[in-house]
Amino acid sequence: MAKKTTSSPKHRNIPEPTIARLPRYLRSFAEFAHNQHTVISSKELAGASGINPAQVRKDLAYFGQFGQRGIGYDVKTLDSKMREILGLHKAWRIALVGCGNLGMALLQYGGFAKAGFRIEAAFDVDPSKVGWELEGVRIWATPAIRQVVREKKIEIAIIAVPASQAQRVADDLVDAGVRAIVNFAPCVLTVPKSVLVRGVDLASELEHLTYFLEKSNRTEK
Amino acid sequence: MAKKTTSSPKHRNIPEPTIARLPRYLRSFAEFAHNQHTVISSKELAGASGINPAQVRKDLAYFGQFGQRGIGYDVKTLDSKMREILGLHKAWRIALVGCGNLGMALLQYGGFAKAGFRIEAAFDVDPSKVGWELEGVRIWATPAIRQVVREKKIEIAIIAVPASQAQRVADDLVDAGVRAIVNFAPCVLTVPKSVLVRGVDLASELEHLTYFLEKSNRTEK
Repeated sequence: MAKKTTSSPKHRNIPEPTIARLPRYLRSFAEFAHNQHTVISSKELAGASGINPAQVRKDLAYFGQFGQRGIGYDVKTLDSKMREILGLHKAWRIALVGCGNLGMALLQYGGFAKAGFRIEAAFDVDPSKVGWELEGVRIWATPAIRQVVREKKIEIAIIAVPASQAQRVADDLVDAGVRAIVNFAPCVLTVPKSVLVRGVDLASELEHLTYFLEKSNRTEK
Repeated sequence: MAKKTTSSPKHRNIPEPTIARLPRYLRSFAEFAHNQHTVISSKELAGASGINPAQVRKDLAYFGQFGQRGIGYDVKTLDSKMREILGLHKAWRIALVGCGNLGMALLQYGGFAKAGFRIEAAFDVDPSKVGWELEGVRIWATPAIRQVVREKKIEIAIIAVPASQAQRVADDLVDAGVRAIVNFAPCVLTVPKSVLVRGVDLASELEHLTYFLEKSNRTEK
């Protein structure tokens, strides 16, 4: 069977688990670049990203023939290819709804700016917070979502409100033209098919770990 | 080829993507139970969990023959089977390191308690926070990690400190006997092979979405 190589800029057939690993490679590229490493081996990338070498080689194969036998992969080329695939070569306009502890943590989270994301507007129901500016981002009253999101042409929203308020907030965001939502509220949102939702369930991260702990307990017995 | 059915309580061969979906099913079971639904169809479960019906049926098949044709699945049985697989039939002792905005959000996050997790101790470097009690959890000084984690026999830790401090914190936790870490710091941790780490990169949630937005933009052109 002939080995399939992908060199088209469309890359339509990259499997989702590979896509999900790209952000981890990007973090590692940033570290390599910071340390003036311009060419790296798949083994080095595996070590830095915490992904096994065979998987790294398989993933990189989707990005065409960048690796040179005995020399390695060019960090800058791989970085810009992966950014293009992830849609990170352009700026995305983001809104944050909910400025409690979690929302505040997200506003101040260094990782967003580092990845090239910019929160353009924040919203909260608490009148004492409305009008504040934090990290250069103004906090608006929640009922202003439709107007502000439309005016600022925001495409992505982060929901960090209690579960009881999340659906109403999502409805307003979708009405105003938001096309993708990261949902931190512990509930499932109902949205039109054209809108993407990524639910971040903080408890499920723990549940995933307890599965492996429990499994290793069983094996030890 | 004979169809393989799993009825052993060990369930060693459940694929990881299925395991990763179990928490979402558990959330839905809680809603069904709350609404006095004792028997559900795979279609109902699909609707509530946001997972497609074919995938739901495939996932449930790993849990043996609980579904009855034309009747459906017994919520309580499925719930307790999945909890057992995830190791949630017992209590896990958790420590939280870092009580900034994110740490505070995690301490107050309703989803943990709902899922049966209990944070036993919190740690922070800020002397003005040490000694506080929040949501019934005492905040200790970070240098006390080794002692407190050992004394309280903590098995799982959540790291919510800046990236620059994360590795040192992880070393202390592992030394004190922690076997699994959820890492919110935007960096890769180096730990012994026997320790599980799950990195939660909040920016990568956004990057996953921009991939799909960019892809649909390309398709529309």
